[in-house]
Amino acid sequence: MRATSYADAGVDIDAQEAAIGLFRDAVRSTYTSSVVHDLGGFGGLFALDREAVQQPVLVGSIDSVGTKVILADLAGRHHGIGQDIVNHCVNDIGVMGAEPLFFLDYIGIPHLRPEHIAELVDGIATACRAVGCALIGGELAELPGVYRQGTYDLVGAVVGLVDRAAVPDPSRIEPGDLVIGLPSSGLHTNGYSLARRVLLEQAGLPLEEEIPALGCTLADALLAVHRCYLPVLRAVRGGGVMKAAAHITGGGLVDNPPRVLPDGCGLRLDRRTWHVPPIFGLIAELGGVPDEEMQRTFNLGLGMLLIVGKDDAEAALARCAAAGCGGMVVGVVQGGEGVEMIGRDETRTGGSHG
Amino acid sequence: MRATSYADAGVDIDAQEAAIGLFRDAVRSTYTSSVVHDLGGFGGLFALDREAVQQPVLVGSIDSVGTKVILADLAGRHHGIGQDIVNHCVNDIGVMGAEPLFFLDYIGIPHLRPEHIAELVDGIATACRAVGCALIGGELAELPGVYRQGTYDLVGAVVGLVDRAAVPDPSRIEPGDLVIGLPSSGLHTNGYSLARRVLLEQAGLPLEEEIPALGCTLADALLAVHRCYLPVLRAVRGGGVMKAAAHITGGGLVDNPPRVLPDGCGLRLDRRTWHVPPIFGLIAELGGVPDEEMQRTFNLGLGMLLIVGKDDAEAALARCAAAGCGGMVVGVVQGGEGVEMIGRDETRTGGSHG
Repeated sequence: MRATSYADAGVDIDAQEAAIGLFRDAVRSTYTSSVVHDLGGFGGLFALDREAVQQPVLVGSIDSVGTKVILADLAGRHHGIGQDIVNHCVNDIGVMGAEPLFFLDYIGIPHLRPEHIAELVDGIATACRAVGCALIGGELAELPGVYRQGTYDLVGAVVGLVDRAAVPDPSRIEPGDLVIGLPSSGLHTNGYSLARRVLLEQAGLPLEEEIPALGCTLADALLAVHRCYLPVLRAVRGGGVMKAAAHITGGGLVDNPPRVLPDGCGLRLDRRTWHVPPIFGLIAELGGVPDEEMQRTFNLGLGMLLIVGKDDAEAALARCAAAGCGGMVVGVVQGGEGVEMIGRDETRTGGSHG
Repeated sequence: MRATSYADAGVDIDAQEAAIGLFRDAVRSTYTSSVVHDLGGFGGLFALDREAVQQPVLVGSIDSVGTKVILADLAGRHHGIGQDIVNHCVNDIGVMGAEPLFFLDYIGIPHLRPEHIAELVDGIATACRAVGCALIGGELAELPGVYRQGTYDLVGAVVGLVDRAAVPDPSRIEPGDLVIGLPSSGLHTNGYSLARRVLLEQAGLPLEEEIPALGCTLADALLAVHRCYLPVLRAVRGGGVMKAAAHITGGGLVDNPPRVLPDGCGLRLDRRTWHVPPIFGLIAELGGVPDEEMQRTFNLGLGMLLIVGKDDAEAALARCAAAGCGGMVVGVVQGGEGVEMIGRDETRTGGSHG
C-alpha cells in the first residue's frame, strides 16, 4: 500500500515555511513600539495605551478584496492586492473616527507559491506602514479543493481605536448639510465580477494593451490600488467639521450613504458635479449595464463621501486639498430617505474605446 | 445588446439581504453591554473598560476552518463549522492568557443560500455566547469564480484582552516541568485534506453509515465540533499554576509545542499515557500514513497541552477536572529542543473498521 502524506493531499508545509522566510522582514517592518511579540505565537500581542483616549472604543472590521484577485492573477501582479485590503479596512474604520492599531491577514489559496505570498504580504506591510498600523498576525491556508486554480482569497481584519465622544453622531446630520465627494482611484475593490464579465468575457478586451479611452491598459485601470482616505479623514476630523463619512464599497453610491444617515434624511447627488472615470463608462457601454445597476455596484469615481454643515464646506474642502485629496461638493442632505441622483448620466460618456 | 447585471455576473444582492434578515437575531444575541453599535455600520464598536486590567494588551488572531467545510457541505451540516472557527480562535488567544472581547467573521462562498449562511452564523453566535464574546462584525462575500462549487471558506478573527503581567512567560519553563494533555473532540480543524483523501477518496467509506470502529458515522466523527478550552484555561490560570499552553492545530503535536517553549527546552511525550481516538487509527491504517506524518498533521487526541511545574500538576489536574475537561500527564519538559515521542504507536490500534 502506498503511503499517503499531507503533501500528497495537496498541502505543502515546506512551501509555507519558505513563504514565511520571505515575508518575515516585511511583517516586522510594520511593528510599532506597541507590538509585544514576534512572529510564530498563537496570537499577536498589542499593548494598548490606557491614557490614549478618554473613553476607549475599539473598532473592528473584516473584509476581502473579492474577485479582483482573479485579475491580479491574470496580470501576475499581487502587490497592489495586499495594499487594497489594508486600505479598504482602514477606510471602513476611518469613517467611524478610528485610528488603526493593528491588522490581521488571511490568505486562502489552492497551491502555495512562496514568491506570490511574499509579494502579497509585502503589499499588506507597505499599506500598514503608511498608516502606522502593525501587522500582528496572519494565517496562510493552502486549501486544495476549496479554491479554483488561478484564484485565492485575501481577507483582512483591522482593529482601531476611537474616543467614544469622537464617533460620528448621525443625529447631528440635517437637511441642508452638504456632501463632499472624494475621488476614487478606480473600482477600488467592488464590482469586479461584473467588470470581468463585461470587459474580459463579453467584450474580450486585452488586459495588457493600452486602451485609448482609458489612457492606460485595462490591467492598470482595473488593478489601481484602493485609495486610502485616512490622511484626509484625519485632516477633516481635526477641524471638527465632519458630521459623517461613508465609504463607497459594495452597494455603490446608492446603498452605502444610508448606513450613516439618521432616519428621515436622504441624499441628493448631482451627477454633473464630478467626473466619472472612463473605466466606468466603458463597463456601462460595453455591457449595456443599466444606470441604476451601475450606481448600486460601483463607486463611479467617488470612493468616500463626507457630510458637513453647509457653512463648514469651504473649510472642509481646504483641509481635503491640504491632505492631498481634492474633493468637491457633489450633493446635499435632504428630507426623506435613500439616495436620489439628478443630472446627466456621465457614465455614458467616455465609453469610446479604441 | 442584452444588458448585463450584477446578478448575471453571479452576485445576488437580494440573497445577501435575505441572509442578513435570517441571522440578525443570532448576531444580536451575542451583544454584551460593551457593544455600542447595531448591524450595518462600517465597523463594529466595542467599548473597552479602561480599568479592566492594569496594563491592557490586546491579543488578535485570525484563522479559518480549512477543508472541513467540504465535509460539512457533503453532510449538509454547517452549524458546527460556525462553532469550530470561534473555538479555534478563542483557544489561540486563550493560550496567551487572553479573554475574548469580540469576534469578526468572513464567509466567502460561490453561491449564496440564505439558510446555509444563517446556519453558519447561528453556529458562530452559539459559540460566541458560550464564552461571552460579542460578534461585532462580519462580511458575506459571494465570489463566483474564486470558490469551487460545494465549498466555501469561513474566516474568523478574534480580539481578546490580557493584563501584560498575565501573559505566559516562557522563561519560567524548565526541564522537569510536566505536560498535561487535554482531550480533543476529534480532528478539530486540522488535517482534513489528508483525512478526506484517505477516508473518502481512497477508501471510499460512506459518510453517513455507522462504522463499528468509531461507534458512530464518519460524518459524526469528522464533524465533531472543535473543543473550546477557555473554561479549563480560565480555571488553571486562576490557580496560577500554568506556565504555558499550546493549542494543537496545524503542525500537530510536533510543531505546536515549540511555539511556547524557551530556547534549550523540548518536550518528551509518552504515547502510552493517553488514548488516541479511533478516527486517527483509521486514517493511519487505511492511508498507510507514516507515524511521523500523523504526528505532524493531527492532534492525535490531545487538543491542548499545558505546562506546569511538577509540584503543581496535581492541583492543575484537579482544576481541569472541575472545569469539565479531565486531563492527564502526558509528558515532561526536557533539555534540548522539539518534541520527542516515546512509547508504542497507539494510532495503529483501533483501526479495525467494519
